[in-house]
Amino acid sequence: MDKKEQSRPVSLRQVQVTDAFWKKEMELVRKEVIPYQWEALNDRLPDAEPSFSMRNFKIAGKITEEKRKQGDAYKEVKWPLIFQPLPEDMDHLEDRFYGCLFQDSDFSKWIEAVGYSLTQQADPELEKTADEAIDIVCAAQQDNGYLDTYYIINDQSMIFTNLRDNHELYCFGHLTEGAVAYYQATGKDKLLKAAEKYADFVASRFGEEEGKLKGYPGHEIAEMALVRLYEVTGEDKYLNLSRFFVDQRGTRPYYYDTEHPEAVKKGHEDEQRYSYNQAHLPVREQDEAVGHAVRAVYLYSGMADVARLTGDEALLEACEKLWDNITQKKMYITGGIGATHMGEAFSFNYDLPNDTAYAETCASIGLVFFARRMLEIKASSKYADVMEKALYNGILSGMALDGKSFFYVNPLESLPEACHKDERKFHVKPVRQKWFGCACCPPNLARLLSSIASYAYTEAEDALYVHLYMGSVLEKDCGGKKLDIRISSDFPWDGKVMAEINAEEPVACRLAFRIPGWCSSYTLNGQKGLEEGETVTADGETRQVKDGYLIIDRVWNGGEKLELDFPMEVRLMQADARVREDIGKAAVTRGPIVYCMEEADNGKNLQLYSLAEDPEPQAVQEEKIGQRMVTITTKGKKLVPQAEEDGELYREYKKPVYEDVLLQWIPYYAWANRGEGEMQVFIKTNR
Amino acid sequence: MDKKEQSRPVSLRQVQVTDAFWKKEMELVRKEVIPYQWEALNDRLPDAEPSFSMRNFKIAGKITEEKRKQGDAYKEVKWPLIFQPLPEDMDHLEDRFYGCLFQDSDFSKWIEAVGYSLTQQADPELEKTADEAIDIVCAAQQDNGYLDTYYIINDQSMIFTNLRDNHELYCFGHLTEGAVAYYQATGKDKLLKAAEKYADFVASRFGEEEGKLKGYPGHEIAEMALVRLYEVTGEDKYLNLSRFFVDQRGTRPYYYDTEHPEAVKKGHEDEQRYSYNQAHLPVREQDEAVGHAVRAVYLYSGMADVARLTGDEALLEACEKLWDNITQKKMYITGGIGATHMGEAFSFNYDLPNDTAYAETCASIGLVFFARRMLEIKASSKYADVMEKALYNGILSGMALDGKSFFYVNPLESLPEACHKDERKFHVKPVRQKWFGCACCPPNLARLLSSIASYAYTEAEDALYVHLYMGSVLEKDCGGKKLDIRISSDFPWDGKVMAEINAEEPVACRLAFRIPGWCSSYTLNGQKGLEEGETVTADGETRQVKDGYLIIDRVWNGGEKLELDFPMEVRLMQADARVREDIGKAAVTRGPIVYCMEEADNGKNLQLYSLAEDPEPQAVQEEKIGQRMVTITTKGKKLVPQAEEDGELYREYKKPVYEDVLLQWIPYYAWANRGEGEMQVFIKTNR
Repeated sequence: MDKKEQSRPVSLRQVQVTDAFWKKEMELVRKEVIPYQWEALNDRLPDAEPSFSMRNFKIAGKITEEKRKQGDAYKEVKWPLIFQPLPEDMDHLEDRFYGCLFQDSDFSKWIEAVGYSLTQQADPELEKTADEAIDIVCAAQQDNGYLDTYYIINDQSMIFTNLRDNHELYCFGHLTEGAVAYYQATGKDKLLKAAEKYADFVASRFGEEEGKLKGYPGHEIAEMALVRLYEVTGEDKYLNLSRFFVDQRGTRPYYYDTEHPEAVKKGHEDEQRYSYNQAHLPVREQDEAVGHAVRAVYLYSGMADVARLTGDEALLEACEKLWDNITQKKMYITGGIGATHMGEAFSFNYDLPNDTAYAETCASIGLVFFARRMLEIKASSKYADVMEKALYNGILSGMALDGKSFFYVNPLESLPEACHKDERKFHVKPVRQKWFGCACCPPNLARLLSSIASYAYTEAEDALYVHLYMGSVLEKDCGGKKLDIRISSDFPWDGKVMAEINAEEPVACRLAFRIPGWCSSYTLNGQKGLEEGETVTADGETRQVKDGYLIIDRVWNGGEKLELDFPMEVRLMQADARVREDIGKAAVTRGPIVYCMEEADNGKNLQLYSLAEDPEPQAVQEEKIGQRMVTITTKGKKLVPQAEEDGELYREYKKPVYEDVLLQWIPYYAWANRGEGEMQVFIKTNR
Repeated sequence: MDKKEQSRPVSLRQVQVTDAFWKKEMELVRKEVIPYQWEALNDRLPDAEPSFSMRNFKIAGKITEEKRKQGDAYKEVKWPLIFQPLPEDMDHLEDRFYGCLFQDSDFSKWIEAVGYSLTQQADPELEKTADEAIDIVCAAQQDNGYLDTYYIINDQSMIFTNLRDNHELYCFGHLTEGAVAYYQATGKDKLLKAAEKYADFVASRFGEEEGKLKGYPGHEIAEMALVRLYEVTGEDKYLNLSRFFVDQRGTRPYYYDTEHPEAVKKGHEDEQRYSYNQAHLPVREQDEAVGHAVRAVYLYSGMADVARLTGDEALLEACEKLWDNITQKKMYITGGIGATHMGEAFSFNYDLPNDTAYAETCASIGLVFFARRMLEIKASSKYADVMEKALYNGILSGMALDGKSFFYVNPLESLPEACHKDERKFHVKPVRQKWFGCACCPPNLARLLSSIASYAYTEAEDALYVHLYMGSVLEKDCGGKKLDIRISSDFPWDGKVMAEINAEEPVACRLAFRIPGWCSSYTLNGQKGLEEGETVTADGETRQVKDGYLIIDRVWNGGEKLELDFPMEVRLMQADARVREDIGKAAVTRGPIVYCMEEADNGKNLQLYSLAEDPEPQAVQEEKIGQRMVTITTKGKKLVPQAEEDGELYREYKKPVYEDVLLQWIPYYAWANRGEGEMQVFIKTNR
């Protein structure tokens, strides 16, 4: 690791996203999702399952206050520790915990999204609501710092006794991330102080020392959250705790065995367990992404953070192997990960079925977290290519174009009849849902989209890296001097990017622009761009291309304009031949966008279609489904079935007869916005 | 229905199967499976899960004796009614029921197979063992006739309280079938009398009358079993009870709701339930095969029996619709049925995935039962074509070539890695298993194969129908006069069939020979055979083809020879275009045999292969996997992957490059006899 290659995400306070495409998404979050989520948190949505999140905090607050008042006289009322306590009668609620046992995180993800959103758009009313919510949450905090309502309400004597399943450190992690984000956005530190106090309590209970627990989170996130806490407070103890969790994970004897002796089958003690939690091996020995996909990428994100801050080469090497395993053997072309619904997990290498794909929205979001952290260690365009792919495809597909409904699961092929009738596909919904009982994806989308600029841009003291292209206005401080950078872009529809640099005094700064992997050749100010490994120095400016970035070093005087053009041609893509489901098929892409066919445009029975030998793709800019987008038409062939009517199920093979058709392709992220219908990403080529 | 078109299966005592192919299978059953099964029934197999079947009967026998001795003083010891009680320690067994709650049927299926087997090969030792087993079983019978050890041992007060789940009438049905078979084979009626007594008890508890239960079997089979009992005893009451069960099924209010009120969700009372048990609608209103596949085809078999005996046209019409739905929309090319492992059930129309196919061996066996019963009502070759297809493919594949291991599930595509690593495919085993804890398939294979002649031949008073071709020696009684018929056949490898008819005096008889659907044109004694609808009368003989049967009416003097030739050409087959998984693919067949590719002959990565445009199939008679069989080679193409080494998972589409290869095909039933390896039935055509 070379510290000179490292960078950090820009502060959202120094960048305003002006981009038409991403601003629209951010506004959907700000105007639809955040308010809707607040209503959900307060159980005010008539047509969605109640969250009970704020209610739990209020009840916990009362308990904490009682406990404080009564001191030794306090007698705790206990409730059973079940996964999702629900009221029998919504009109008669008791003073107890309701909802999924990790429901505290609903609030935390919301406050995080609110924080980010406030950096882009001031909103005093929203901020007031947020502050009040923070008051409620902080009132629930116990004097020792503990702040998980599930245990505060149900049984305080049982805290940290089921790390594998009961999500305490998960909720702690989300709370910390939310607290840091809100503080960084508003300067208000009430929640941050609560998070620190909670972290100190966690640190007092976990560690190598005698009497402390050598456990680690069953659902990872605390690792990356503690790093954020470290970076905003400067306190080593938080980095140390994160590293402790990373180092302990998967060591023998297995910590979770002590919590769950029944998991150990007689005669099978030496077998690996807990791959679902990526706790089957010490992390530095892991080279394959396994288990629950969201947990996995959250862990790998934390590992990358710790590696960067501690210079741990072995840890970084593990990150790189895990990254390669995911992106080379376990990732959908849409950036979706986690092929199987069983365990919402990674499947085995190259097992990427299109119709049963799980590809949880949250998992792709976690992949973006992981990608950005690898970029922070070293800007290499392969990470940003994946980040971009996931953002524009498998993640955006998680939200409807109107921001009012969501997909948990993002298949690459959908047959509504199967969604309704085939229990093996019940996890695949044909249309998005308004909310879910245990609703992890919408809030995750909200916090990611609201902070999108911190994925687009990272910086070092005297360098700015541009990983994603979106219209923005940035302030870049280079060694005390300021650069104002205005970027215009029409991604994902057009590849032209304009960067205008302004300065009040000459500023030496490095600007690095990612060259998208999908672009075969680009231009800079009309001239053919440099290629990997080339360097040119002229007129006091050095340009080079390294690891997929066009790097420009110079002193900026102000008034410079950089016009990049990354031409977006329609590209047909194919999968590695070891992906059995994609043999003989191709996918249609253009720039960062992956396309799909829908029944609404092409009729039923999409399986009858194949690409013409020369598909002659045409990209068309148009208004469709209420959006400005580039759609694609290709020439295709439609199989003429031997007989339409009922009759023989199997008959003598005859050379197939096709009719010529024109196929209509829309961006994958825009699918399922016109009711139920078939959808397909990969199409047969019959070649 | 026309009584003149009806026929009954020949008695096994009047036919000896001499056929090389089927005799070999029957000998495997006789020498391997039946003895092995007896060891299993007595828990003497070291490397298989114990059955506890005979043990349960012995314990029940003790209880029955005690109850009889003690009279009113008898105090029952009760045990919990769980699905599969198992001992904690095999060295310390208690005097209680162990094993699956339907384990009694293990014995019954064994005794049935023994009965059939004895008709083909006398075996005094086996018969003695069988008689002793029957003694043990009959000793368990309660004085009132009840004979289900699960309840006799666990809680006699709870009999018939959970018809939906607890398999009493299922076990009763199998016991009855076994008893009838043994009686018909040996003339010994001890078990038959026990079955009658049990049936009388069941009839005393179930019926329309006040105070009787209006229930019906949760797992169907009693319907067809009672018909067999009726036909061997002549007692109407058994037919009436069968009809009662058929008529009650699926009527409203649902009987199972009274047993299981918790199954009725508030607000959902009017919705259909119990499709798993085909009890969602009255049977005459059912036109789609749904639910658990074995239950379904056992029901439809019983329905056909009752329809035939009662002349019930509405019931027959339902059978025909259900037959059509299965064979036109829900059946694999191998005769496998039940596409989904979820519920071991039928999926929706045309949903026939190859790799996750359930296609339970027992379900295909049940399809054969159903087919034969439809033939009994009217000989129409479409029924026999399916029967033949299932027998030679999806059923035979259920048993290893050495008779020592079995498949429960019969996929049309297998990837061992997925079997081991993908939980969604854990029901698919890459190799056959020696025995199963709840072992329904091996005994079902045993009873079917041992009685194969009763599927090949049915007869009316003056007619013999030949549905399947296998070397046999038959005695046919035609109105008191005898015909001796010797059939030689080399099916499934060669289509020539020789029938030699001998008689001591002139006998007027109709002989009907099925013309296989896979045969485009046939010859009789060297002359082109008649086609559907044609009739020729000459020399006192009338020949006609009706419903796919060549029917010859004449007076036989003895010495006549009929040489039929049904040429077996290699035929490529395709599925209806609505079967999405088979689009752009073809299957290789020859005569009744469906072929497959295995890794052992073609290497790994079968997904890289496609058929050449002109496959030039060659059929080769050879010795392979220790068997005489016809294998097939076709020209094929193998995709040359763009890059073998790790690297890009998705890359720019390039016109694929192929190398020419010769593909090796073996009969599907012979797959998985050479260790683990990939297998595929359908192959891409790239056309």
